[in-house]
Amino acid sequence: MSDTETTTAPKIPRDRADDYTKDQSAVRRAFVAEQTGTKLEHAGHYSFDPGILRGNVENFTGVAQVPIGIAGPLRINGEHARGDFYVPLATTEGTLVASYNRGMRLLTECGGVKTTVVQHSMQRSPVFICEDALAARKLGAWIDQHFDDIKAAAEKTTRSGKLSNIGQYALGPLRYLRMNYTTGDAAGQNMTGKATLAACEWIVANYPGELQYLLSGNIDTDKKYSQINQLLTRGKRVVAEAVIKREVFQRLMGVDTVELFHHRQISMAGAFMVGSANNGAHAANGLTAIFIATGQDVANVAESHAGITYTQLLPNNDYYWSITLTSLIAGTYGGGTGLATQRECLEMLGCYGSGKADKFAEICAAVVLAGETSLTGAILHGDWVSSHDRLGRNRP
Amino acid sequence: MSDTETTTAPKIPRDRADDYTKDQSAVRRAFVAEQTGTKLEHAGHYSFDPGILRGNVENFTGVAQVPIGIAGPLRINGEHARGDFYVPLATTEGTLVASYNRGMRLLTECGGVKTTVVQHSMQRSPVFICEDALAARKLGAWIDQHFDDIKAAAEKTTRSGKLSNIGQYALGPLRYLRMNYTTGDAAGQNMTGKATLAACEWIVANYPGELQYLLSGNIDTDKKYSQINQLLTRGKRVVAEAVIKREVFQRLMGVDTVELFHHRQISMAGAFMVGSANNGAHAANGLTAIFIATGQDVANVAESHAGITYTQLLPNNDYYWSITLTSLIAGTYGGGTGLATQRECLEMLGCYGSGKADKFAEICAAVVLAGETSLTGAILHGDWVSSHDRLGRNRP
Amino acid sequence: MSDTETTTAPKIPRDRADDYTKDQSAVRRAFVAEQTGTKLEHAGHYSFDPGILRGNVENFTGVAQVPIGIAGPLRINGEHARGDFYVPLATTEGTLVASYNRGMRLLTECGGVKTTVVQHSMQRSPVFICEDALAARKLGAWIDQHFDDIKAAAEKTTRSGKLSNIGQYALGPLRYLRMNYTTGDAAGQNMTGKATLAACEWIVANYPGELQYLLSGNIDTDKKYSQINQLLTRGKRVVAEAVIKREVFQRLMGVDTVELFHHRQISMAGAFMVGSANNGAHAANGLTAIFIATGQDVANVAESHAGITYTQLLPNNDYYWSITLTSLIAGTYGGGTGLATQRECLEMLGCYGSGKADKFAEICAAVVLAGETSLTGAILHGDWVSSHDRLGRNRP
Amino acid sequence: MSDTETTTAPKIPRDRADDYTKDQSAVRRAFVAEQTGTKLEHAGHYSFDPGILRGNVENFTGVAQVPIGIAGPLRINGEHARGDFYVPLATTEGTLVASYNRGMRLLTECGGVKTTVVQHSMQRSPVFICEDALAARKLGAWIDQHFDDIKAAAEKTTRSGKLSNIGQYALGPLRYLRMNYTTGDAAGQNMTGKATLAACEWIVANYPGELQYLLSGNIDTDKKYSQINQLLTRGKRVVAEAVIKREVFQRLMGVDTVELFHHRQISMAGAFMVGSANNGAHAANGLTAIFIATGQDVANVAESHAGITYTQLLPNNDYYWSITLTSLIAGTYGGGTGLATQRECLEMLGCYGSGKADKFAEICAAVVLAGETSLTGAILHGDWVSSHDRLGRNRP
Repeated sequence: MSDTETTTAPKIPRDRADDYTKDQSAVRRAFVAEQTGTKLEHAGHYSFDPGILRGNVENFTGVAQVPIGIAGPLRINGEHARGDFYVPLATTEGTLVASYNRGMRLLTECGGVKTTVVQHSMQRSPVFICEDALAARKLGAWIDQHFDDIKAAAEKTTRSGKLSNIGQYALGPLRYLRMNYTTGDAAGQNMTGKATLAACEWIVANYPGELQYLLSGNIDTDKKYSQINQLLTRGKRVVAEAVIKREVFQRLMGVDTVELFHHRQISMAGAFMVGSANNGAHAANGLTAIFIATGQDVANVAESHAGITYTQLLPNNDYYWSITLTSLIAGTYGGGTGLATQRECLEMLGCYGSGKADKFAEICAAVVLAGETSLTGAILHGDWVSSHDRLGRNRP
Repeated sequence: MSDTETTTAPKIPRDRADDYTKDQSAVRRAFVAEQTGTKLEHAGHYSFDPGILRGNVENFTGVAQVPIGIAGPLRINGEHARGDFYVPLATTEGTLVASYNRGMRLLTECGGVKTTVVQHSMQRSPVFICEDALAARKLGAWIDQHFDDIKAAAEKTTRSGKLSNIGQYALGPLRYLRMNYTTGDAAGQNMTGKATLAACEWIVANYPGELQYLLSGNIDTDKKYSQINQLLTRGKRVVAEAVIKREVFQRLMGVDTVELFHHRQISMAGAFMVGSANNGAHAANGLTAIFIATGQDVANVAESHAGITYTQLLPNNDYYWSITLTSLIAGTYGGGTGLATQRECLEMLGCYGSGKADKFAEICAAVVLAGETSLTGAILHGDWVSSHDRLGRNRP
Repeated sequence: MSDTETTTAPKIPRDRADDYTKDQSAVRRAFVAEQTGTKLEHAGHYSFDPGILRGNVENFTGVAQVPIGIAGPLRINGEHARGDFYVPLATTEGTLVASYNRGMRLLTECGGVKTTVVQHSMQRSPVFICEDALAARKLGAWIDQHFDDIKAAAEKTTRSGKLSNIGQYALGPLRYLRMNYTTGDAAGQNMTGKATLAACEWIVANYPGELQYLLSGNIDTDKKYSQINQLLTRGKRVVAEAVIKREVFQRLMGVDTVELFHHRQISMAGAFMVGSANNGAHAANGLTAIFIATGQDVANVAESHAGITYTQLLPNNDYYWSITLTSLIAGTYGGGTGLATQRECLEMLGCYGSGKADKFAEICAAVVLAGETSLTGAILHGDWVSSHDRLGRNRP
Repeated sequence: MSDTETTTAPKIPRDRADDYTKDQSAVRRAFVAEQTGTKLEHAGHYSFDPGILRGNVENFTGVAQVPIGIAGPLRINGEHARGDFYVPLATTEGTLVASYNRGMRLLTECGGVKTTVVQHSMQRSPVFICEDALAARKLGAWIDQHFDDIKAAAEKTTRSGKLSNIGQYALGPLRYLRMNYTTGDAAGQNMTGKATLAACEWIVANYPGELQYLLSGNIDTDKKYSQINQLLTRGKRVVAEAVIKREVFQRLMGVDTVELFHHRQISMAGAFMVGSANNGAHAANGLTAIFIATGQDVANVAESHAGITYTQLLPNNDYYWSITLTSLIAGTYGGGTGLATQRECLEMLGCYGSGKADKFAEICAAVVLAGETSLTGAILHGDWVSSHDRLGRNRP
């Protein structure tokens, strides 16, 4: 194809009057059929008025029908989530629901999971470009001194977002800011974007000197795992913890907790050696399934799956197991949470709408812990390792 | 709740005769309604026979209806993907489809995206526990010497999986193996699990000395971002590259490529400083949307979003832009790819079934590059930065 | 050797009355000769009274004579370091001094290096072990509320150490604290250790509830590179920056700055891909040599070599080059700075004693930048790449 | 200072006839005195003929006298190092020698340290710049096919260097190579540089197509910690391991091994959270001291301090402790190893000259393990934590 040749493939049809109708989605399915030869029959099968999709999708053409399995009951003894929960998991991966279900049974038989949201921090990270490092340092000091004004400017743009603090990262003539907010029941990426723009504009308007900035310095790091978020939290930092009784783990998983702890040393060393985002097993599996079911921004799995497992073998050989999700990004308001099936799934958890975000985060963490226990048990048990070579404690 | 108190919440109903029926899913929806007070009306609305879900989900109860928007045309000049594509994106995030659509237009006007799968490598990583480091080193040498036998043992378990090589990682008395496979058109986590078990069993049976191992040493790192996969590939390593014409970028994005390159230095420095899994913009967004639409294991976004952008400003001020996805895990066969809407979406890309995995991977990478151009343009343009403070080149 | 067998090798002789004498060091050299057959003749040759070594070394036996070469003049236009400096570099690596010398000439001909200390932060990081994550969160909030008291308790133990802030990192039932101090002219590891112990004791004594802690949670991370220090600074964060004139770089290095910037994209991408502690060239070389010469704790090279290079090609094709050392740990007071040759080397830089630490840090950063320019030039020039394959700009 | 102003500071005097004489070093000391006002009296005190310094330093002016303390005996039961060793440690940090000495006593009383070099791999990493990713992939395949020829070309340049394998890392249109060598008794950075240049030239001369390359793609990563070296080894990968008897640890350190293992979980979690280069305590301290004493390239502490501790509490409550240094760069031949005091220190370890590099590496690792036990014991004991708050096992 020559440089000057342009495509002759037609543009996707849009209805400028009202693009969110059943008819218009059918027009686009017909367009797909004509262009690609594929009839989107199943994708055309949905149960809601497309009018609800404004603000959620463009060029609406149909739906993905993702099967939901339910798992539970899962007993949670959290600050916000308390009781026995049945959890909707949207997935196409066989055994996922069964495995989480098994872990939920284990945890519930052991008395349940304790859950705690320990930190809230959603951020945007602009960067100011200064003449040199000294000018950047002076700007940084000025920003510290004017935090209250900057906070006021930022918060004018939002009802629920609150600017907690501004981290500063010096690099040559650049000053990266990490503006950390609490965001109520929304995940908050949008509101923090608007608030940060207002904050930057206030800084530019009031700083005694000319300033240049870029609204994203690529350190927030939106939709990307990063060490900074593992450390400093993005969204919610949530802990799920439980004491696994030796007898129950032996009975349900077929593995002794003493053996479990022995092998934990090996998997931790491995995770450290290879620079893993999570020294646990597979947090992403459960999170993704609950995110799809409940209308979360599923791309945030990139960040949300990060975490740190910390365990101890107790003197009575019961097993203390915790996982800390360091960047759980989830909301119960806005985004896709109000769509048809998504809202139903939030409602069955008692998590739809305002005032529910921490409860939902706690449930997510508890689900993750259930999955950790189940997969780890399976790896150590004969399903994954032949019985005649079961690992013993007689090796280092 | 006392330690001995057990939950009284009932178990989820299952039909041992045939659990994959419309009736049984209705029974579970009724159960949810009874237990939680939530009627799953929309979730109960689906267009397929639940019998197809065997091997994809347990406790099937309904579906998540995730809206699909389409974007395109996107011109791809790959090895396997060639032509103008319309891409189904399942998402609930407003502007995502519009933004990718804009990037596709840009790339197509510039002549399209070149795409190349540069490496295939799916793995499982068992760990052998030896008496000491010396014994572990000897085991490692023995494994190198017996690679052909181990390969034969592994490949007996699978038609399409081929063991390419075995990486070895020494840590104290442990020998972690990274068994790297090609897996045909499947993502391949399951087949490599079985093959690795067979390989380990062969090693144990034939090694002159007693051996203990664990099927997972937590270094593969399944469903987790890691540095080892960034380096050594998990799934497919795919490159999308394009030369962005200065005039087109200016016209469509309102930003000069010279300015673009200037700011690229800043975002790269930021990504390096904070330990980001990707020094680009937001690969996870496009990947997640196409993954949900096409029945991929969406949890693999945790690994798949990793990548490295490499750019150059050409002498004529056109802009060479590449992104290398280092751990793209996707398939066109098995998993959820054959389900109702999922198959339709693969078919509209010409990617359903065997022999299509590399084509699909190339499309994924091209979509990601479209999203990179669009979001980066937006950040630099006035939508994100007020026009009077547009960044110039007069600052370092 | 059986488990119960104990060594018969004799203990090293010590003189309990006064171990820091020429005689006693000779006794130990004789002991070494007897035990190992090696006469430490050169090592026994030193020019100072061993009495000055109290607090610097135990079992003093002799000295390593590490050759010092000098490089310069290096023009520095810093806040604290201003003028033309001659720099003592203790090394046994051929070409190191010559290479740094060449870089210094380049920088000086371009008008010199601008240097700025942009952050001070030395830390100790205890960890509190709580009943559960909720208890840990409450402890964290209490610590925030009692910062002034904790600061007062910490600062009672030191004249020059000031507690700036306390970072908190939640992980399961654990609360890691990162107590950040400024430390005057000393590197400060010891003073911050004492102050942190006092702070922790105050917390334990005053917290309404029983507390357990460990003085090190291994997150400071003393004598180890870490991402947290790359981000948040350990010791001093120092920037060296310069505008390299195209003509001068071409003349002295034989390389065009346009080519230089082209290749910078490649080395940055490489450093990002492999998880490097520094995306520049070889900061450790110059730092180690100046550290040995000036009595620094040379083990701190582990942390101090971390850094981030940020560059831009200016519109006139001059080259803006900066390096930010994120964890430079250096002092001009205490430690080995007062020993015989070490003090002389600090003095020739005008950096011995109190009030000189920032000046010395600036010199270190300027030296590092000199080495970056020199080695990078050499890699691009024909010494490292054959001339007929010199890289051009006609490739991406 | 204006852009055009050049420095008037004089150049350092050199004697073009013979720069390595006592007289010429005195000339430079006089120059320093004149320029800076500092008399380098102690630095002028050395015991060797400067003629030996050719190839080790330029502008030789004097020496740093770094005090050496000795520690030991340390019993090592390695492959190459066997017996009781007295170790020279050059340092100015008080307590370092005493602390390592204590750890050596502990290990020796427990029967000694087992040491093993498990991998050799020194590397240079050129990068080839291709037209696009496809061309780069083809080049990669061609290199694989011509490995024997490339190896022959590389090995022509060196007697002791052997090219083991070539790792390939694809990134956009770039192909980074990691050429891995064994290097006999030298650390090997120089010989691998020459060999790699020859290899690249062979590739360019023989590849059917025009090629461009850069001798360093910044991924080796020389003089810098990196994840790739942590994973894949740089220099030598060496393990030191020991079984610490509960009784001995209790008696010498005042800490129970059960408590030790409990806290190990906490320090491992911390190291993982913060992205540390080493999840142990302070490997850099011992390595730096032995490096300075024995004429190693001390800047390699940047890489050499990386490592991974792996421990287990054995059924009898003895404590298995291992540390794996993943990038130990050390040699017994070339560099500074033959200088006056440096050679003496190697000789007292029985490590001077050819055939000794593995023995020396084993000693380094054993020394590191001694330091780990000693500092960890101190942190847990009352020196670091007040006795009334000693950590118990009744907390998670």
